[in-house]
Amino acid sequence: MTVNTRPGRPDPSGTPGRPVMLGQNQYGKAENRVVRITRDGATHHIKDLNVSVALSGDMEEVHTSGSNANVLPTDTTKNTVYAFAKEYGIESAEQFGIHLARHFVTSQEPIHRTRIRIEEYTWERIATSGAHAGPGGGDGAGHSFVRKGQETRLTQITYDGESWEVVSGLKDLVVMNSTNSEFWGFVKDRYTTLKEAYDRILATQVSARWRFDWTGDEQEMPDWEESYEQTRRHMLQAFAETYSLSLQQTLYEMGSRIIDHRDEIDEVRFSLPNKHHFLVDLEPFGLENDTPDGAVYFAADRPYGLIEATVLRDGCEARIPTDLTNL
Amino acid sequence: MTVNTRPGRPDPSGTPGRPVMLGQNQYGKAENRVVRITRDGATHHIKDLNVSVALSGDMEEVHTSGSNANVLPTDTTKNTVYAFAKEYGIESAEQFGIHLARHFVTSQEPIHRTRIRIEEYTWERIATSGAHAGPGGGDGAGHSFVRKGQETRLTQITYDGESWEVVSGLKDLVVMNSTNSEFWGFVKDRYTTLKEAYDRILATQVSARWRFDWTGDEQEMPDWEESYEQTRRHMLQAFAETYSLSLQQTLYEMGSRIIDHRDEIDEVRFSLPNKHHFLVDLEPFGLENDTPDGAVYFAADRPYGLIEATVLRDGCEARIPTDLTNL
Amino acid sequence: MTVNTRPGRPDPSGTPGRPVMLGQNQYGKAENRVVRITRDGATHHIKDLNVSVALSGDMEEVHTSGSNANVLPTDTTKNTVYAFAKEYGIESAEQFGIHLARHFVTSQEPIHRTRIRIEEYTWERIATSGAHAGPGGGDGAGHSFVRKGQETRLTQITYDGESWEVVSGLKDLVVMNSTNSEFWGFVKDRYTTLKEAYDRILATQVSARWRFDWTGDEQEMPDWEESYEQTRRHMLQAFAETYSLSLQQTLYEMGSRIIDHRDEIDEVRFSLPNKHHFLVDLEPFGLENDTPDGAVYFAADRPYGLIEATVLRDGCEARIPTDLTNL
Amino acid sequence: MTVNTRPGRPDPSGTPGRPVMLGQNQYGKAENRVVRITRDGATHHIKDLNVSVALSGDMEEVHTSGSNANVLPTDTTKNTVYAFAKEYGIESAEQFGIHLARHFVTSQEPIHRTRIRIEEYTWERIATSGAHAGPGGGDGAGHSFVRKGQETRLTQITYDGESWEVVSGLKDLVVMNSTNSEFWGFVKDRYTTLKEAYDRILATQVSARWRFDWTGDEQEMPDWEESYEQTRRHMLQAFAETYSLSLQQTLYEMGSRIIDHRDEIDEVRFSLPNKHHFLVDLEPFGLENDTPDGAVYFAADRPYGLIEATVLRDGCEARIPTDLTNL
Repeated sequence: MTVNTRPGRPDPSGTPGRPVMLGQNQYGKAENRVVRITRDGATHHIKDLNVSVALSGDMEEVHTSGSNANVLPTDTTKNTVYAFAKEYGIESAEQFGIHLARHFVTSQEPIHRTRIRIEEYTWERIATSGAHAGPGGGDGAGHSFVRKGQETRLTQITYDGESWEVVSGLKDLVVMNSTNSEFWGFVKDRYTTLKEAYDRILATQVSARWRFDWTGDEQEMPDWEESYEQTRRHMLQAFAETYSLSLQQTLYEMGSRIIDHRDEIDEVRFSLPNKHHFLVDLEPFGLENDTPDGAVYFAADRPYGLIEATVLRDGCEARIPTDLTNL
Repeated sequence: MTVNTRPGRPDPSGTPGRPVMLGQNQYGKAENRVVRITRDGATHHIKDLNVSVALSGDMEEVHTSGSNANVLPTDTTKNTVYAFAKEYGIESAEQFGIHLARHFVTSQEPIHRTRIRIEEYTWERIATSGAHAGPGGGDGAGHSFVRKGQETRLTQITYDGESWEVVSGLKDLVVMNSTNSEFWGFVKDRYTTLKEAYDRILATQVSARWRFDWTGDEQEMPDWEESYEQTRRHMLQAFAETYSLSLQQTLYEMGSRIIDHRDEIDEVRFSLPNKHHFLVDLEPFGLENDTPDGAVYFAADRPYGLIEATVLRDGCEARIPTDLTNL
Repeated sequence: MTVNTRPGRPDPSGTPGRPVMLGQNQYGKAENRVVRITRDGATHHIKDLNVSVALSGDMEEVHTSGSNANVLPTDTTKNTVYAFAKEYGIESAEQFGIHLARHFVTSQEPIHRTRIRIEEYTWERIATSGAHAGPGGGDGAGHSFVRKGQETRLTQITYDGESWEVVSGLKDLVVMNSTNSEFWGFVKDRYTTLKEAYDRILATQVSARWRFDWTGDEQEMPDWEESYEQTRRHMLQAFAETYSLSLQQTLYEMGSRIIDHRDEIDEVRFSLPNKHHFLVDLEPFGLENDTPDGAVYFAADRPYGLIEATVLRDGCEARIPTDLTNL
Repeated sequence: MTVNTRPGRPDPSGTPGRPVMLGQNQYGKAENRVVRITRDGATHHIKDLNVSVALSGDMEEVHTSGSNANVLPTDTTKNTVYAFAKEYGIESAEQFGIHLARHFVTSQEPIHRTRIRIEEYTWERIATSGAHAGPGGGDGAGHSFVRKGQETRLTQITYDGESWEVVSGLKDLVVMNSTNSEFWGFVKDRYTTLKEAYDRILATQVSARWRFDWTGDEQEMPDWEESYEQTRRHMLQAFAETYSLSLQQTLYEMGSRIIDHRDEIDEVRFSLPNKHHFLVDLEPFGLENDTPDGAVYFAADRPYGLIEATVLRDGCEARIPTDLTNL
């Protein structure tokens, strides 16, 4: 293969004998923001996604010599996202990601593996007054939305031409228990000054990923939308209903509740920052702040405890990477 | 007044005859994060605020010579926020800000004017299964919350010892109409390439401030919580119910609806970025994307149209600053 | 004027007799990211700007009826930014903003006032090894850059057809004095617990705006690039060289130094958050942390003192808005 | 072990026979912001770090029953960071992290593995005028700093009681070549519309991690500060000096240059977003934008190409996780 033969350009090929190897690599277009509106008469539906494509395969040459002969441009992967949204619709983020991953692996010989990551933003309908409807359906009931703004829903689809891995999840779901949390009986060393707590606020910003047992086309596919709603509900309820002696215990209960109730899920990974709420010392001002009713807290930013763990179905292997955050 | 007389320090006083004057100035502690939990039996309530204090007054000396003789430390203003949350509770952000502003102006002779700004974060209850209740009320029904995460509620209280100004509002409320929006009949000059649109998405991230007619203790105070809920509702409904020929028209209707329905409000200011959703050109792929059903859009980040305006009650004077954003 | 006459659409005009007025309003395209590369042989130069356009004028109709007959689309204002960057170049952000503002006010009859805001990002050259130069100038010396990443340079140009206002400045310039700062002699009330400090860290993130005395074409225009470099230098030196008894004193000296040295500037506004560095109490671990050498600090995020003031040339009127931040 | 025996609390222990296992888990205090100032006479030095601690070990009980008997509180890990900064100083981020990791693993029997992550912020001296020195050294030359604000330096130390892994790196270093970049000869499928480019801007925001060959106390430790400076320099020079036919080729050269020149480094991982600068089409306005001099570009935010790869010393095993970002 000849590359870079236009006159006046240096030869970019590596020095022979250079003691360097190429390791894992991937490329693609990240953060393609695609919105699709479907109309069911006057009632509209929104799918609002942020889609990132990563392709791997026979890519040695583009790194060592700059030859793009095996490179489908990232721009093309972007175009494919938008074209597929039109051609196939977006039934769910997971289904859409599966369509995309299959396409790249099966249509491009040099591409051996595709990973699709999707963020999904949720919208809810604006309740209208009913008093302003016009001939054009101006009352907004079916086509007016406010972004929910709570968690961001996530999914990651990986396909290597043989088997599938689907990991869904969410981030930025902030929850609080204003009681039923304690923390005591811990190790004390030379640097320990923390006092035991018998009634504290427990708050966290949930980042969770769960892996489905679905790996191949011969299995029945889960109902991705229903699965998400139920998994989220069990997780929230476990948080609310657990009398907590440590954030680890709450985390483990959140994961176990999902494994208990959702057969399609084999593994859950959590990253839970402890959003500290410190009781303010008001004694210098002659005020007591130790009665549960009317307690005043300082909500701290940094530093924060960070609790991370994987909860698995018995006998399953852990496959979700352990670093959901970079800190 | 003598300052800075400890040996070995330079004289910080200004050079006499320097042609420099001090203009408007203010200081205080910003972003005091205060959370207060009240308990009504097993049912708890949260107030979650971010409070910023700004004091003005007889502060020439601290600027020109460094004398702090008139300076209440910003640390003290922080302490006051937390102490007041305990002593007086937080009935509403507005009521809390009024308490604080009155305190600083009336208790400190050099302080002539106080401005309190508050951000409020809203929480909603987690629906529990009812199946896991324990003796400690472990079912979470009354003490478990998820942050709503939609808009951030805002208020600003200003007091100069004589009259009050209360400006409330919100930011980051993202709304969309998937139809009933057009844009045509505009000016065309040498640099105009935009095509007319007869059915487009209209989406924006609402930043709004509204000024109350309440200015003094002799007037009856509005019900701040009820006022917020109703103002937000009218604003959303106006957005949903307006058949829009321009974002300006929608903005004006949103403001007018508030003025129409909320007697306690005299002025509204909006800053509405036009969150563009562009129809993707899919013709190169042999796909049509011009049918309303199943249309696919690219949600763009930058640049964006930015529409800003004030809507006033007839005969009232505009007092809300026109720059809600820095761009 | 007839608008919105296509069948099936509601009449958007306001209800007659509605007690509502339109106040100040403006619109335009915000955050147009324009980069221009000029080549001086193998030596290239970058101008990297973020340009926001805001137009005001005879815009009543677009708000009340949705008629766009006076509306130059925001998309056109974007096109104009890019076209002007090609046609006229970008000598400086200020000069570029002046070109744009003049164009909109003079070419569009309904537009009476234009405000251009610009952020500028600075790049510096990458020092190359000189060992790898190829025929194409591959050594990078003239065309390879790293973003400086320190402050963001700002300017705002306002033109109403008669006179000009130019306010330049910067944001996000983080500075620290590790000594020569004290804070004592302050007011103490019931809520004061702060101890006096005789040797503390003083750190802040400078946000500053300065207004030029240049208001019209009959005056000689300042050298905008030189003015920025010198103003920044005086500000930094004043910060470094001031023995500080309060952040207010440092602020005032920073402003005064600019007024003293830069005849073209009449007014400076600062917003200086006090980036607190608290000495950590290490006594529980048997460690002293009160010796100046090797002192260990906790760098706090929130809350923070916020000090804001205007410094003016004697006899000048303050015109920079006092709210540079929203907190 | 008995936990949670205070009356009125539910039994938190797991249901026997529940088909759930605990997988990898870790906990600790994240984002401890520690600043240490050392004084060499009037010349001061800053170390400004953000330290995150993650501990793993015998932690089954705290997850399943809430017993904290093996849990050193995250608050204690925070205290240790500050105490160690005083006791041992901060010679480098790497050296500091090694101290901390060794401490937790060797002093707490249940803790088998520690990971310390550190971000470091760089400051440079403010050049003073020399004209304002006072008795207190008020000229600022030795104690006045401005934050460099370019890249953030990173390191991660992992210790399991036997061997060490040190991975250093940086993020947010934005670089640009304004020429010497092409992109052509790529695969074209049904969705490809991109045109070939023979002279384009190549810009990226470098995120890089490099792993040292140092794994144990019997080896001589690298000079961490010198290593960082040289590695960064080689990386920047490789970016500048490479005539690029693809961002992959530039990435590979950046990694290879490090492997070539820094014997202490065995592996490098890059995540390089392609910060697209698109030539603006100015033909509709009668302007040509295809001459290299004075070309005008639109700097796009999203979507962006994302190029990620590992470069290894021949014969070494890849150990840096392949997901440096979450997209």
